[in-house]
Amino acid sequence: MSTAEIASDHTTKDIPLLINPNSNEVESENIVTPPTSYPASRKRYIPGTLHPCVHVPVREISLSPTTIHTHGAAQDKPNAPVCVYDTSGPYTDPDMTIDLQQGLPPLRVDWIKNRGDVEAYPGRVMTPQDNGYISEDPTTSIERFPEKSRRSTLRATDGGNVTQMHYARKGIITPEMEFVAIRENQRLIEDDSQLQPHPGQSFGAATPKVITPEFVRDEIARGRAIIPANINHPEIEPMIIGRNFLVKINANIGNSAVSSSVQEEVDKMVWATYWGTDTVMDLSTGKDIHDTREWIIRNSVVPIGTVPIYQALEKVDGKAEDLSWDIFKDTLIEQAEQGVDYFTIHAGVLLRYIPLTAQRVTGIVSRGGSILAKWCLAHHQENFLYTHFEDICEIMKTYDVSFSLGDGLRPGCLADANDAAQFAELETLGELTNIAWQHDVQVMIEGPGHVPMQMIKENMDKQLELCEEAPFYTLGPLTTDIAPGYDHITSAIGAAMIGWYGTAMLCYVTPKEHLGLPNREDVREGVITYKIAAHAADLAKGHPGAQHRDDALSKARFEFRWQDQFNLSLDPHKAQSFHDETLPQDGAKTAHFCSMCGPNFCSMKITQEVREFAARKSIDEANAIQVGLAEKAKEFQSAGGQIYS
Amino acid sequence: MSTAEIASDHTTKDIPLLINPNSNEVESENIVTPPTSYPASRKRYIPGTLHPCVHVPVREISLSPTTIHTHGAAQDKPNAPVCVYDTSGPYTDPDMTIDLQQGLPPLRVDWIKNRGDVEAYPGRVMTPQDNGYISEDPTTSIERFPEKSRRSTLRATDGGNVTQMHYARKGIITPEMEFVAIRENQRLIEDDSQLQPHPGQSFGAATPKVITPEFVRDEIARGRAIIPANINHPEIEPMIIGRNFLVKINANIGNSAVSSSVQEEVDKMVWATYWGTDTVMDLSTGKDIHDTREWIIRNSVVPIGTVPIYQALEKVDGKAEDLSWDIFKDTLIEQAEQGVDYFTIHAGVLLRYIPLTAQRVTGIVSRGGSILAKWCLAHHQENFLYTHFEDICEIMKTYDVSFSLGDGLRPGCLADANDAAQFAELETLGELTNIAWQHDVQVMIEGPGHVPMQMIKENMDKQLELCEEAPFYTLGPLTTDIAPGYDHITSAIGAAMIGWYGTAMLCYVTPKEHLGLPNREDVREGVITYKIAAHAADLAKGHPGAQHRDDALSKARFEFRWQDQFNLSLDPHKAQSFHDETLPQDGAKTAHFCSMCGPNFCSMKITQEVREFAARKSIDEANAIQVGLAEKAKEFQSAGGQIYS
Repeated sequence: MSTAEIASDHTTKDIPLLINPNSNEVESENIVTPPTSYPASRKRYIPGTLHPCVHVPVREISLSPTTIHTHGAAQDKPNAPVCVYDTSGPYTDPDMTIDLQQGLPPLRVDWIKNRGDVEAYPGRVMTPQDNGYISEDPTTSIERFPEKSRRSTLRATDGGNVTQMHYARKGIITPEMEFVAIRENQRLIEDDSQLQPHPGQSFGAATPKVITPEFVRDEIARGRAIIPANINHPEIEPMIIGRNFLVKINANIGNSAVSSSVQEEVDKMVWATYWGTDTVMDLSTGKDIHDTREWIIRNSVVPIGTVPIYQALEKVDGKAEDLSWDIFKDTLIEQAEQGVDYFTIHAGVLLRYIPLTAQRVTGIVSRGGSILAKWCLAHHQENFLYTHFEDICEIMKTYDVSFSLGDGLRPGCLADANDAAQFAELETLGELTNIAWQHDVQVMIEGPGHVPMQMIKENMDKQLELCEEAPFYTLGPLTTDIAPGYDHITSAIGAAMIGWYGTAMLCYVTPKEHLGLPNREDVREGVITYKIAAHAADLAKGHPGAQHRDDALSKARFEFRWQDQFNLSLDPHKAQSFHDETLPQDGAKTAHFCSMCGPNFCSMKITQEVREFAARKSIDEANAIQVGLAEKAKEFQSAGGQIYS
Repeated sequence: MSTAEIASDHTTKDIPLLINPNSNEVESENIVTPPTSYPASRKRYIPGTLHPCVHVPVREISLSPTTIHTHGAAQDKPNAPVCVYDTSGPYTDPDMTIDLQQGLPPLRVDWIKNRGDVEAYPGRVMTPQDNGYISEDPTTSIERFPEKSRRSTLRATDGGNVTQMHYARKGIITPEMEFVAIRENQRLIEDDSQLQPHPGQSFGAATPKVITPEFVRDEIARGRAIIPANINHPEIEPMIIGRNFLVKINANIGNSAVSSSVQEEVDKMVWATYWGTDTVMDLSTGKDIHDTREWIIRNSVVPIGTVPIYQALEKVDGKAEDLSWDIFKDTLIEQAEQGVDYFTIHAGVLLRYIPLTAQRVTGIVSRGGSILAKWCLAHHQENFLYTHFEDICEIMKTYDVSFSLGDGLRPGCLADANDAAQFAELETLGELTNIAWQHDVQVMIEGPGHVPMQMIKENMDKQLELCEEAPFYTLGPLTTDIAPGYDHITSAIGAAMIGWYGTAMLCYVTPKEHLGLPNREDVREGVITYKIAAHAADLAKGHPGAQHRDDALSKARFEFRWQDQFNLSLDPHKAQSFHDETLPQDGAKTAHFCSMCGPNFCSMKITQEVREFAARKSIDEANAIQVGLAEKAKEFQSAGGQIYS
């Protein structure tokens, strides 16, 4: 039975259009309907210079004017709009029609084909096993992604190499590289003169004030940054991961055998990008794993990562010892053909490292790591991901899948942090990085985990040294073990710090970590929490222009432009709803106080009064205070003291 | 009209008994009913040695046994209970009867009287102005705390000095000092041999492995720690604030003119201590401010702080320029007589510093700071808190009220962080610290605010230098301005870091910061978030035994003792409810997986399988793996691979 035939068996069921452009409401308890717009925002596209085909999305937030009182008269002074990095893709573009059955427009398809080094081919034939059906009737599976919407599968011609690193090393600036260069410079689009980076630190090469396409190319060529961009995932808006760029975040989604459905997972992906995730990992492990992934990739504007060993394990009915290189290789090709942008590969879990975990408090906590440990012990053979690493590189370069070298031996509690097992694996990951780089395959390195604050920096320092500055991609780290239910917070502390120290991407942790599968609110909470950590790190690193949004929001706060304060925030919806809980009236949106302090105790209001006093007297603020204070004091009192009424 | 007469006017209204010992449920939308117990916990009291009158509360969490499989037989190995610091007072002691109308038992009253240096006196006569009633009918006020439950007011005899610092400098170890010494050593009570502090850092004097009463005395004498303990607040269980002790947290409560009620505020206090706050600041600013405070103090087992300028401002009908030393002094005495344990005094807001704030993005954001700035400008005179600082010291030492020297010029946004105004004020706070110490008055220093990560350490370094190691007490700091609605998180990052660097107490920030008055869930979220930050800091500082709870929880997690994992966590209720959202069945509490990964993908389960394989063969775990792996592998496979079924 061909792929087409299997597909036609299932086209009778309808998958609902999840994205409702006319409503921000949730349609059922399980189905997430992400909002289709941000308040007071419009989508703009910045064109490329080297590549006119490049159009980089930005979100422009318009602000209300500042009212200035001079000589008793009110005067409005406009505030320039603020442009922010936009991960939400076409879903928030009112000019785009979203049809999940069709998938997103293939933005990059011509860029890829025009390089003249890829060929279309029929691709691997899908089997029921791909969806986790071994003995069961495959007709129980979900609807497949419509055959008519499918594009042909691409691969490098004649064993060639189509990675961004390969082009970079040949001196080629791809459209993807120009795209991310423009994207990283969002702030610069607005007003170059306002750029005042904070005194910060830099690690290795300093981030330039303006990120150029050539700088991007150079960073990728050196292996210090990656653009995860499978040639079979042309739908993405390219993004870059590297410590001389904005710190990125990843959100995990995925059904598990206990909970969740395909529709939920697709919508979680869209939901996560609405809140700002830069990549999404699909960690599904149950049935319908292939088709779920297809729906997600075809509709995802951000790079998708997976852990292929999960699917391979499903194919051997959950028996780790039955895993083999052939099954794994087949799974890699299956997923590479679908368009997965990066693979977590636990090739550093070596047989000899497993005893190092025996005395740990929590042993091996990586799912992939524990599966491979079990395989190694059962066969008393070296990890087949390690022994076949060059074979894997061959696959990666055929589709430009990036490595995310998994930390299968990461610590699962503070007691196990920075131990021999963890650092032994890291050393092997460094060795593997060099092998991948010999194939021009892009690499990032996964990191912990659970680490107390004083031990975080050692992780970064060792990673930079052992892995020669390949981008670091950490899970948290959690800085204490005693707060299940709040691990987005225990880990945001560690994530912000390690981001500052140089980690390029932070994998989010939700409030449900250790307890259960996150629901939509958990995903939102996790993403926003990690946007905070990433942004705090950008600020601390002195990333050019990072503080502009903070300053704009602070100015709005000081001037009681409540709506601007909400609109500029990472979660405008929550900011406004929290405010409205106690002061729902429209008038409160311009009130010079909130319910926290009330009208008489608002410090900002009092400070404003002092400044307006000065303005009324039409003298310079500072002078008003410094010069002739005694005289001013008299006037102030005779005016009734309460200047602002 | 005497105080007694005013009181009798109001005794007809009943205030409900807020604490319901038989229910954990919330009784109405507005009234918080804190739970009266913690799961699997019992309250113990550790007796003093120097002072047999001392009985220090600890919460002992009992754990279920670990099941070990040997030779196919299951065997239970008990796990020692874990003792944790308990801030909840008599409210969680089943042997105590709580009657808010009577107030808590006056634990310290004999300690205070036995020192022979205090006298009872009638105290100041209360006026309607104390409750914010100037022209209105005072009969509209709330019920007063019952006269029959009132104790007589105490003060130092003949202008004496009753501060803990005064005793410490005379070489006296008070019961309060022994109490906190025992309290800081909670961990040591259990099992000394398990003490394995992490390699950490210490600042100034290292924390000893065992905190002795003499160490406490010495730290207080040097001004490096304080025990806030007004002689008119004998209800408290003493606690210590200093960087060689556990990091403490404070929760703010307080009605504002817009929202909230007395009952809510009293219940918020009890609620906050249930979740673990070490002190509470009553920041009320509306009507009934005096009576609200009385209810709170009489029923608070933790020290209470206030900002007296708020009440003073109410007494002059909100007109900052009408404030005077006499009104302020009267307010200080009023509150000292009630038993407030520490006062925020913004004596560092000097006239010459105000111009330094003129070019700031958010000006002056401290309520107290802005009130005093307004007064200074209106009068063109130096801040009367500064000019009368020695007079204030006289009041402080008469009752043992501690200074919390306010940072009225703290930054309100990243752009204003670490600026000239902020550090100028800090220098003045250092000068005032020395004056207070000349009076043997206890001092801590308030700190920011909004500070990006890379600028946090400078705050700590300067504070230590300028204020000669007086305890630092910071608000956050928030590490970015762009996340209103999540500022508990933006600030927890900064709080954990500055706690690690040496801050002694962290003032919480709730999700409602900048947006509105926090409700009960916000207080809970804020307190737990700050317990996380404080604990992360204790771990990073290598505080003796801090990691014991983490290790116990991690072990429970690895062994699938779900109930133990919940019970050991900072918020057992949330941990359990999150788990039960997807797996509510009783069986799931012993299941070897959760809904996050499902049964086949739980790494901890797989690791357990590997270990149990070793145990079944009755050989040492590490050897099982290191020796004869090939042979074991064969056995493993012939046993079906799936050992754990």
